[in-house]
Amino acid sequence: MSQQAAESSPRQPILIHDPTLRDGHHAVRHQLGRDQLRAYAAAADAARVPVVEVGHGNGLGASSLQAGRALLSDEAMLSVVRDALTTTKLGVFMLPGWGTTESIRLAVSYDVDLVRIGTHCTESDLAERHLGLLRDAGVDAHGVLLMSHMASPERLAEECARLVEFGATGVGILDSSGHYLPQDVSTRIAAIRSAVSVPVIFHGHNNLGMAVANSIAAAEAGATILDACARGFGAGAGNTQLEVLVPVLERLGYDTGIDLYRLLDAADIAARELMPAPPTIDSIGVVSGLAGVFSGFKNRVLDVAAREGVDPRDVFFELGRLQAVAGQEDLIEDVALALRAGSTGQRERTASHV
Amino acid sequence: MSQQAAESSPRQPILIHDPTLRDGHHAVRHQLGRDQLRAYAAAADAARVPVVEVGHGNGLGASSLQAGRALLSDEAMLSVVRDALTTTKLGVFMLPGWGTTESIRLAVSYDVDLVRIGTHCTESDLAERHLGLLRDAGVDAHGVLLMSHMASPERLAEECARLVEFGATGVGILDSSGHYLPQDVSTRIAAIRSAVSVPVIFHGHNNLGMAVANSIAAAEAGATILDACARGFGAGAGNTQLEVLVPVLERLGYDTGIDLYRLLDAADIAARELMPAPPTIDSIGVVSGLAGVFSGFKNRVLDVAAREGVDPRDVFFELGRLQAVAGQEDLIEDVALALRAGSTGQRERTASHV
Repeated sequence: MSQQAAESSPRQPILIHDPTLRDGHHAVRHQLGRDQLRAYAAAADAARVPVVEVGHGNGLGASSLQAGRALLSDEAMLSVVRDALTTTKLGVFMLPGWGTTESIRLAVSYDVDLVRIGTHCTESDLAERHLGLLRDAGVDAHGVLLMSHMASPERLAEECARLVEFGATGVGILDSSGHYLPQDVSTRIAAIRSAVSVPVIFHGHNNLGMAVANSIAAAEAGATILDACARGFGAGAGNTQLEVLVPVLERLGYDTGIDLYRLLDAADIAARELMPAPPTIDSIGVVSGLAGVFSGFKNRVLDVAAREGVDPRDVFFELGRLQAVAGQEDLIEDVALALRAGSTGQRERTASHV
Repeated sequence: MSQQAAESSPRQPILIHDPTLRDGHHAVRHQLGRDQLRAYAAAADAARVPVVEVGHGNGLGASSLQAGRALLSDEAMLSVVRDALTTTKLGVFMLPGWGTTESIRLAVSYDVDLVRIGTHCTESDLAERHLGLLRDAGVDAHGVLLMSHMASPERLAEECARLVEFGATGVGILDSSGHYLPQDVSTRIAAIRSAVSVPVIFHGHNNLGMAVANSIAAAEAGATILDACARGFGAGAGNTQLEVLVPVLERLGYDTGIDLYRLLDAADIAARELMPAPPTIDSIGVVSGLAGVFSGFKNRVLDVAAREGVDPRDVFFELGRLQAVAGQEDLIEDVALALRAGSTGQRERTASHV
């Protein structure tokens, strides 16, 4: 029935990278327990998902008062998921600052197959030491750029080329605030694709309902590693929905090697065992995506806006205009106070103003 | 930040048609009450949504044992929503068979601004009498084709041209099973666009996570009337999410005339007052969309599959292969029995087989 199935052309392989047990952790304040990790990891393994990523939402070493204490230690999470996997590879995520060289050694000691090092989109230099360490240890290492809508395609391509020099065996971009539309993704992936010879990665969020479409745009522009989570379980409005993306890719002529029925089973297990409710796009999710603000700011914005009696939507749009980045949480207070004083923003805003 | 904003080019107008109080009725077994209808209609009116459609999920005259009894009569629904609207137009939906010429007279007596007549995608002839009646009454009338993925672009264009001959002032297609990917929509809308001179309509469902992307593809191919519901409230995996589509359209340079903040307020009211939970894409939703099966079959398939001890996913794929259409519910039994007897389908299915 579809006009798009490319049955006669050779099927392009796409490697699906599944951070359900890492990005999804954001949605449950990092409180997944052993049985939950084990149940989902085993189900993903049975479906032949190539890589499962596990950890605190902010990655190795991030469990803390500031980022939220995880229920389990990094060691416990790695151990449980390592034991649950047979053919699926074990991946971890790390943001330098939260994670350290010690975290890398820990991951290596648990026989992790793949480590992802993430940095802000213009700060790939921060990944040099960790990528070098992983290259020396012979462990597959990805370098990924967060909040990537804040940099031009050319700049992202340069940063990715640098990540490859540091030793990354795959590089790419995260749409951390769910801001992209498909054409934004195409341009950026194409620029990166032409700058590097390693596999290119795309990781979407669904704030504007575009996570699946953006991932397809990424594949069409040459990305060969796509991130997706069961039921979209992830920060804010959620990630690209895994069990939707996979059959859509297959229908378009890509080859994921994944068993659809078992993938649907895994998603059902995730829905039942991991999440109070699957992610949906609420009004704050829409505004956060439009404004291009880091999803992690949500609760702080809501708290501060309520206290100061200002519209949290105005706070998001102003933070977007100021190009606030993760780590600049202090700006939230400044913006709310300025809005209360009437020195910026406006309470009425038509859709054409965004 | 987006590469796509077309700020310098003239903004193309898009008319948003909002069936939250009609398609959403499917999700709550047609049980919305007066206060609920009033609250949402007033909020949509305040946001300057151009048209609000109200009624039983299957439209005028459909309240019945077979299609489900609505809490309110057609008269009560029309009366409450008519009173709640100031500038927003009042729309109704009708499927010939459920609705009759009497239903049209009723709608006209309640001063309805717009009547939509829906038929299966190859049966536009069934709308002739009703569209003629509306033309004679001077009421704006749309003709829309259900389950439109089952017909070729050329056939849909012919059927739409016929609807225009009958008197339709707008024509288009419903993706009733949520089967389309953007390229499928582009081809069909372009074919219809070149066959008629009235506005072209697209109505999406989100089974494959593509409702917003498909609606954008429709606009880019020349559709100027797009359907969308608050939080996607609608049958099965839900419709295109209204408060996501509108700002995405605006960002791409289209003009909806809608107030974003008040639209987000209306969506929040819908989430709080109308729905037990916003629609999400569950595994059956994915399978139903992939198979191209009418969403209304869902509960019957689940019941019959459980009784016969077969996999409901196999039943969906087999119904899709048989091109079952709404009204052919008997096929569900036949397929389940055949699967139990082992004479069709298979229990293991990789993603590449869909």
